[in-house]
Amino acid sequence: MDALVHIVGPEHAIRDEAEMAPYLVEWRDRYRGKAALVLKPGNTGEVSSILKVANETKTAIVPQGGNTGLVGGQIPFESGHEVVVSLERLTHVRDIDLSSNTMTVEAGLPLAQAQQVAANAGRLFPLSLASEGSAQIGGVLATNAGGTAVLAYGSARDLALGLEVVLADGQVMNGLKSLRKDNSGYDLKDLFIGSEGTLGIITAAVLRLFPKIVEKVTCMTGLTTLETAPAFFARALERAGPALTAFEIMPRIGVDFVLRHANAVRDPLPSPHHWYALFELTSPREGADLASLAESLLGQGLEAGEIADAVVASSLTKADALWRLRELMSEVQKEEGGSIKHDVAVPVARVPEFVARANRLVELMIPGARPIPFGHLGDGNIHYNVSQPRGMERAVFLSNWEALNAAVHEIVLDLGGSISAEHGIGRLKRDLLPHAKQKLEIELMRKIKTAFDPNGILNPGKLLR
Amino acid sequence: MDALVHIVGPEHAIRDEAEMAPYLVEWRDRYRGKAALVLKPGNTGEVSSILKVANETKTAIVPQGGNTGLVGGQIPFESGHEVVVSLERLTHVRDIDLSSNTMTVEAGLPLAQAQQVAANAGRLFPLSLASEGSAQIGGVLATNAGGTAVLAYGSARDLALGLEVVLADGQVMNGLKSLRKDNSGYDLKDLFIGSEGTLGIITAAVLRLFPKIVEKVTCMTGLTTLETAPAFFARALERAGPALTAFEIMPRIGVDFVLRHANAVRDPLPSPHHWYALFELTSPREGADLASLAESLLGQGLEAGEIADAVVASSLTKADALWRLRELMSEVQKEEGGSIKHDVAVPVARVPEFVARANRLVELMIPGARPIPFGHLGDGNIHYNVSQPRGMERAVFLSNWEALNAAVHEIVLDLGGSISAEHGIGRLKRDLLPHAKQKLEIELMRKIKTAFDPNGILNPGKLLR
Repeated sequence: MDALVHIVGPEHAIRDEAEMAPYLVEWRDRYRGKAALVLKPGNTGEVSSILKVANETKTAIVPQGGNTGLVGGQIPFESGHEVVVSLERLTHVRDIDLSSNTMTVEAGLPLAQAQQVAANAGRLFPLSLASEGSAQIGGVLATNAGGTAVLAYGSARDLALGLEVVLADGQVMNGLKSLRKDNSGYDLKDLFIGSEGTLGIITAAVLRLFPKIVEKVTCMTGLTTLETAPAFFARALERAGPALTAFEIMPRIGVDFVLRHANAVRDPLPSPHHWYALFELTSPREGADLASLAESLLGQGLEAGEIADAVVASSLTKADALWRLRELMSEVQKEEGGSIKHDVAVPVARVPEFVARANRLVELMIPGARPIPFGHLGDGNIHYNVSQPRGMERAVFLSNWEALNAAVHEIVLDLGGSISAEHGIGRLKRDLLPHAKQKLEIELMRKIKTAFDPNGILNPGKLLR
Repeated sequence: MDALVHIVGPEHAIRDEAEMAPYLVEWRDRYRGKAALVLKPGNTGEVSSILKVANETKTAIVPQGGNTGLVGGQIPFESGHEVVVSLERLTHVRDIDLSSNTMTVEAGLPLAQAQQVAANAGRLFPLSLASEGSAQIGGVLATNAGGTAVLAYGSARDLALGLEVVLADGQVMNGLKSLRKDNSGYDLKDLFIGSEGTLGIITAAVLRLFPKIVEKVTCMTGLTTLETAPAFFARALERAGPALTAFEIMPRIGVDFVLRHANAVRDPLPSPHHWYALFELTSPREGADLASLAESLLGQGLEAGEIADAVVASSLTKADALWRLRELMSEVQKEEGGSIKHDVAVPVARVPEFVARANRLVELMIPGARPIPFGHLGDGNIHYNVSQPRGMERAVFLSNWEALNAAVHEIVLDLGGSISAEHGIGRLKRDLLPHAKQKLEIELMRKIKTAFDPNGILNPGKLLR
């Protein structure tokens, strides 16, 4: 431990339990771990030195970004033998290249700051998450984070052209290429992205930049039924193509929760609808006339019976008000008691079938429980949250968590879906993975893990047992 | 060998040397191999059985698609012990899902047919290559093929959501997911894509579909200098965003070659320019008014001194005529004698510097040789072809191939580029790879190869030594 402290200097190492506390608790308090040490290296060389020592001494390392993860991947276990390596001091913007539309940033840069760097250069870095104020680029890449802009821009994986990674033995892979095309060998970059710190520690990345948005139209529609949502989505995509940058759905009960518990919100349409779709058209082009595109699209949707009513936000303020309904959907569920959550994806066409089957399941397993399925219809990514029945004791309801997860995941897998669409596996879903994947896939993953980290020092017990 | 023939049936196995010939010659006749057998399995099960036997008997397998590869990856070596497995009979379209915008097709389906399947369903499959009539989906994915649409849609990797892969021991990985978001474990899909048949045999894939294009504007500009090309490209991208679906450059000498050797072509602009940029704006949206966007963009480019002249194609026929200049650029070089080729990429901003340095190098190494650098400026992917000096003996010129490659690649690497932007490594660049990559990267690749194919039966000696 002294050797490790020496690498970063005592002022950047934490041994005191109270001072370590913020690094050891998952932000929703679902995991509390212990650590021997928290290290805050100041550059890639120090990360390299730390891993070299850790590898030689077989010391387990837990890499940590902004500690906003939702599956416990960033929190050490309870043994107290692990060392947390926080990348928070690696915040340099190393380069920005406006002709190539790239920026090279270090792992500890918060996502919101990365967005701001791009905006200051007249560009867009489109990745956007609820936790973007704290989430860091390294963590965002290690978990292949998603968000609402995936529909048009892809997830974190699609936004990174190159990586600098420190491997288990301390060697540094310098893959900071800013190339759209590079067919020279196996795709190592995408192996590190989404590996949740188990194959290497990402210290810097070349990120793609996009033209800034100059025109935006936000629409809220009342769907005729959920069954018509994929058809209306397909129509919107066909008409708008890459201008369709978000397509979210939410159920009436979720809107009711927001209206009941949040301030400064209002019912978006004159009469209530069982389901809503919120979508956004954007363009970097001035005079793209998205308003007339939206109008014609809504007209077609009404005529085809896919939607029953719609409103187009006439100002940015009104657009924000519509988005607030969607953004508060998770938060307000707290006010209605316990909530059991799922982060799943199915093919877009099968979302209605998934919701119908899952709702029936919930009614059978926990009569009176209230499903609030909402999220990114355009990616088939539904946050299938279930609020407790009114009057039930919270703890009693929450004792169903694992059983309900298992049953919902069975439906997801039956429909060709994923049990973790955007949050990752971490600790929360590690033991579910063997049920969701072929044995063969797990074996291949384990072979890769062994090849890259033979001593098993990188975030052991996360993602893979 | 008899056991292998038995799997596919004698009618789908070729042992006769003359009949095998088309599978053993690279189409430009740069590689001629020998094989013990050519097998044409009819389904994934048969591919699995073949690999099971091959793995047990340590028989080397060379997977082959449409035999259009440019680096010799699909051709067996000269030993005569290898077995070619052609996927040509796996041509089923297993599924098409218009709400999810995906189609599931087998590996042997020619690319042009896959495009047609999409078009018949009112969708676009955007991958487009000169060899698309013969190139097959499996080969296209195994080599992560690129083409002119990468700028807007990405390369083959970006267009595949899921894969079915037969592994070295015959086990079948069923990863045919049609999900945009799936964060459940390591990204195995992207490891197989671009691995050139050395990690597994792709037998089917879920491919992304896009809205069909209803409006298109094609423009040819005479650039002021090559130095202004990145700025004009950046302007076009900033203004048009995802509507900018192609941005190609070519030098005057290339245009001269086409005018000299091809029929039905004409000089695109009233007076000659040293460099040309050909770009295309497209939209799935009717009434997108791309013509006015093009006009305003060209006006700005002229005013900023980035371009000197421009023409907008006023009909599809005229647009095709402009594209013909670009598409014939490689072919016509044959008429000017020997040509030494490079498929490289550098960051967009550094393309002018790359061309200037490479041209100076050529003049020093082979005075009088004529560089024809052309290609996908928007991806930084330049086909740096060099035609022989007039009057030099072809063979004498071509004897410089390896030395010139080495010197050009040194410049590429110095500029942070790739020595294989879109054609892959195969046999042609295998021994260059260790110079282009960190030792560490090669070691990681080798570890993966050993883990996935311990007996080394999958396309041995390709990509990695």
